[in-house]
Amino acid sequence: MTTIAFVGLGAMGMPMARNLLARGYTVRGFDIDARSTRELARDGGASAASAAEAATGARILILMVVDASQAEQILFDAGALAALAEHGTVCLMATCPPGAVERIAQRVVANGRHFVDAPVSGGVSGAMAASLTIMAACETPTFEMIRPVLEAMGDRLFHVGERPGQGAMVKAINQLLCGVHIAAMAEALSLAAKAEIDRTVVLEILSGSAASSWMLKDRGSRMLERNPPVRSAIDIFVKDLGIVMEAGRDSRAALPIAAIAQQLFLAASGRGEGRSDDSQVIRSYYLMNGVDPN
Amino acid sequence: MTTIAFVGLGAMGMPMARNLLARGYTVRGFDIDARSTRELARDGGASAASAAEAATGARILILMVVDASQAEQILFDAGALAALAEHGTVCLMATCPPGAVERIAQRVVANGRHFVDAPVSGGVSGAMAASLTIMAACETPTFEMIRPVLEAMGDRLFHVGERPGQGAMVKAINQLLCGVHIAAMAEALSLAAKAEIDRTVVLEILSGSAASSWMLKDRGSRMLERNPPVRSAIDIFVKDLGIVMEAGRDSRAALPIAAIAQQLFLAASGRGEGRSDDSQVIRSYYLMNGVDPN
Repeated sequence: MTTIAFVGLGAMGMPMARNLLARGYTVRGFDIDARSTRELARDGGASAASAAEAATGARILILMVVDASQAEQILFDAGALAALAEHGTVCLMATCPPGAVERIAQRVVANGRHFVDAPVSGGVSGAMAASLTIMAACETPTFEMIRPVLEAMGDRLFHVGERPGQGAMVKAINQLLCGVHIAAMAEALSLAAKAEIDRTVVLEILSGSAASSWMLKDRGSRMLERNPPVRSAIDIFVKDLGIVMEAGRDSRAALPIAAIAQQLFLAASGRGEGRSDDSQVIRSYYLMNGVDPN
Repeated sequence: MTTIAFVGLGAMGMPMARNLLARGYTVRGFDIDARSTRELARDGGASAASAAEAATGARILILMVVDASQAEQILFDAGALAALAEHGTVCLMATCPPGAVERIAQRVVANGRHFVDAPVSGGVSGAMAASLTIMAACETPTFEMIRPVLEAMGDRLFHVGERPGQGAMVKAINQLLCGVHIAAMAEALSLAAKAEIDRTVVLEILSGSAASSWMLKDRGSRMLERNPPVRSAIDIFVKDLGIVMEAGRDSRAALPIAAIAQQLFLAASGRGEGRSDDSQVIRSYYLMNGVDPN
């Protein structure tokens, strides 16, 4: 079967690469953390000493790295693009700003390769269960070629457009709502605290009413704890809402609600709480409005 | 059984009164629209020629009127409070600002009667199915007394506090999230339009991801129509988010996300679109950001 180079074997990338192995693909992995590269090899993958070595002769190169600048560094500076098979395909699955994805795609295509913009949603549990949502943007023939590969990692696959950057845009739109929903429930629950109403009762009411959201059900009880375990950090939304605002700026679209939500996460990060659970953005409201959170 | 005076037989009040009749209560109804009063009489209720006549000697007076000033007018000017049985109970179920509810409660209690602040959520369908969520604030003995009456109209009954105004506050908190969720999905879907991405696909992705909300699933497809049937009007959220902001102001709590959401509904109303379906708040974004909605 097709040899796939996989660069970025972190909390998301590792289970995604494993799911490719489980479908019988040959996966040649690389991560800057050599332990991750070795771990994939133990699971039946091939290990490479560099991103370029992983990419050498591969038909497909999947990038599940931290951000767009890492993707650029690997492709253009570290030589992974040049090492890829002629007419090979670069598939960028990290969450990146749409504008950056467009620029990367142009350079990849100018180099005679295909490009798939395919960010994911569903978190680590979705990556492990091969149940990710994948928002792919690329030309239709390229989409049909890469479809089985993407279907090995996710069970909700969407071809959202022909133009790279549109996948990243859909991911940004998704993160806009996720971030806003967390900040809005913080606004709502902090108002309950200010009015000295039992927040547990309020949360129960909201969870069963038209006010409910996926985030309310997932983050609600953690938001009412003082020091909940960190499932996803505040700084993730500082980054993701930063991407949302960049997407809006590049599209020339005002996004006033997302802008406010971003400021509340940013303020929390500025207080040194960036590594706290994202539900703790409620502290921005407690502090701003002089609410005793007890 | 207890005689209940019921004032305000509109889209919500009529089915609520009918559910009281179905449980065997004697209901004496009044509405400024005489046809509604007659309709209740046809269904087995008693009709009254005025709010005061409905209240005369009743143990409980339920108010399902438009706003706080109507409630004040009926209770204090039209003589309904004075007509109520000694130690009777006023139960205000309309959506009102918490501060106004507190002031009404004080006057009712000073008059030797009990007061229950009990707004509802669940809309006309919840009122018909007796499946409303009811957020009651009053002293515990009063709550226990009125519990069976409230349970005849709703199946999610919460005693949210001892102090009248706290029920109205919980309703405001509920509406804060409802209004913000509609405005946020408008922001998200208008960005998709600006980026020329198929909004139907985006909506399908969002509906199945962590970005989902009750409102997204309910309003999503209507938001993508040009002239959807009106299920709930923009002006309802102009009013309800106005109550939210008043609740915040009275509590001295900044609510920046709700404030932005309110402005978007307000702008739509200002364009003469206040009677359109609330999903059409997306037009505030289309127009603001120069998006062709087609």
